[in-house]
Amino acid sequence: MARTTRSAPTLSDVARHAGVSLATASRAINGSETRTVGEELRRRVIDSAQSLGYAPNANAQAMARGATRTIGVVVHDLTDPYFAEIADGIATAATEHKLFLTLATTGNKIEALGDMVTALDSMRVRAIILVGARWKDPDLHRGLHTSIEQYVRRGGRVVALGMDFPGVDCVHIDNEAGASALAEALVGRGYRRPLLLAGPERHSTAAARAAGFAARMAELGHPIPPTHRIGSDFTRTGGTIGMRLAIEAGLDYDVVVATSDVMALGALHEASRSGVQIPTDVGLTGFGDVSTLIDVRPSLSTVHVPTRQLARLGLDLALHGPGDGNGSVTVEAIPVLRDSTPPRTGA
Amino acid sequence: MARTTRSAPTLSDVARHAGVSLATASRAINGSETRTVGEELRRRVIDSAQSLGYAPNANAQAMARGATRTIGVVVHDLTDPYFAEIADGIATAATEHKLFLTLATTGNKIEALGDMVTALDSMRVRAIILVGARWKDPDLHRGLHTSIEQYVRRGGRVVALGMDFPGVDCVHIDNEAGASALAEALVGRGYRRPLLLAGPERHSTAAARAAGFAARMAELGHPIPPTHRIGSDFTRTGGTIGMRLAIEAGLDYDVVVATSDVMALGALHEASRSGVQIPTDVGLTGFGDVSTLIDVRPSLSTVHVPTRQLARLGLDLALHGPGDGNGSVTVEAIPVLRDSTPPRTGA
Repeated sequence: MARTTRSAPTLSDVARHAGVSLATASRAINGSETRTVGEELRRRVIDSAQSLGYAPNANAQAMARGATRTIGVVVHDLTDPYFAEIADGIATAATEHKLFLTLATTGNKIEALGDMVTALDSMRVRAIILVGARWKDPDLHRGLHTSIEQYVRRGGRVVALGMDFPGVDCVHIDNEAGASALAEALVGRGYRRPLLLAGPERHSTAAARAAGFAARMAELGHPIPPTHRIGSDFTRTGGTIGMRLAIEAGLDYDVVVATSDVMALGALHEASRSGVQIPTDVGLTGFGDVSTLIDVRPSLSTVHVPTRQLARLGLDLALHGPGDGNGSVTVEAIPVLRDSTPPRTGA
Repeated sequence: MARTTRSAPTLSDVARHAGVSLATASRAINGSETRTVGEELRRRVIDSAQSLGYAPNANAQAMARGATRTIGVVVHDLTDPYFAEIADGIATAATEHKLFLTLATTGNKIEALGDMVTALDSMRVRAIILVGARWKDPDLHRGLHTSIEQYVRRGGRVVALGMDFPGVDCVHIDNEAGASALAEALVGRGYRRPLLLAGPERHSTAAARAAGFAARMAELGHPIPPTHRIGSDFTRTGGTIGMRLAIEAGLDYDVVVATSDVMALGALHEASRSGVQIPTDVGLTGFGDVSTLIDVRPSLSTVHVPTRQLARLGLDLALHGPGDGNGSVTVEAIPVLRDSTPPRTGA
């Protein structure tokens, strides 16, 4: 590192070397929203920049162009494989567009969403992708609405993945249809008495899955009694607690239906701890089909959510969608039955 | 959104409203490396900005201050729980400092590291944290060395996590000592004939773990013959292939020692597919103790790497370290024996 003491060349050095004004050098290198530079002049400036070893400043380019080469992504928790897969999917797709991803995690604090949007706004990210569920609680999202409105007014684009947001392009997961199809598939395998680990009612994703499943079971002649519907957290711990409550209450059921994979894994853990054999005693299903399920035994029946497709559609909308909600699309969620729900006879 | 058509106020509007020059308004709002603004004047500008609804531009602040409020983080693959945990750890710690994380993923293309550093450099990120192993191949890292040198020359700070990098502050994992302690623990449980899924020799992390393990086994009187050392990829597939090769070759061993958890999970999958019972027939160990192991049965013996601590130390060094390699620290890796390596008798 012999050159450490030499200071880095500035844009003024480049302008002087190329014999142009600073404004022209800036337009040639950083681009401009309104004015262009002739090709010959541009070439001369670029050549000077290269021979001097000048490195362009992406922030200067961002100010000149009005937006950066970054996409803001807000997730709740990267250690949840569902969020990690989506973030990785967006990052991979972004790389193809030579874009980067600025990541904000809320640490599962829903009320932090608005602040995250405002901070990403101040960085002039080109678009913001919000990943996660919506809570049916207007107060929780009030700050978020204001932040989004301000960002959009300045020309920002917001996309919501797996979340309904009025006036914003969304990629919806068809949770109700997926859960409904799961109910059919389970009845087809002989299950009649599900225990539904429904998650919190105010959590839009959990609620849609629970509603779709319960409605179809009722249509098929096997309505779920209120006792068999447990509203613990939409987390691994929520799955553990829901399962423990059911075991302690001595409930009778032939399959445990969790509204997410991590809840199902929590339930599996608690069942094993309490001597309930899965799938011998009761079946078990999750929702999401996160990639880490590959190492779980028995292999977990679930509803496949195409996270890679979700991520790619989200980035497409962020870059090219109308940005007003009219670009919204829906991806299908499809049941995948594995070893945790073998066919039952004599129900 | 009734105000959508009104254009957003500019810094000039704020200056006019406060009755100050544009330069003063900029210094009051964006800060400056060299000049400050009196408190009364600053207050007047801030009040004008608030009453007009002006949102500061973080890129302008970055240019004024010479660095942004973002930390660049480069990982290979977010769907690998090891990288997801570290990225989440850095993001969480960064939030406490009101910093954001701009994430670059290489998609496991080692040679892309240099380009990622250059791109993050052009965004003037405050520091760059590189996560992952080093390859013992000078050509692969040549571009990376140049990119780092340029970034550092401009005052950037680089930290390497789990990777040795000359002239840069590193957070080392004591892989050799952890693997050595694992060898002792396994011998203590009666294991004598390990099959070592060593990973590629040029991969610094895999090599350190394999070397530490093999050296201690030899010291304890159980040297590993070359036939029992397989150099497949440092991935889940590498674990699967290594296990298949050992089974096909009809090798005799009492424990499979993989140099990473995902390799161990690949080996577990292949063993189960081929009718080899773990842990009844042979034991199995991984390395890393990623959080997703919690749902794997039998519970996997491994060497715990404190990823949260790694992430936190990495951010501390990035913000406050000397930046010249003298800030380097080492974290311990400690064996944790679980159900996949029960005590053996009659070895």
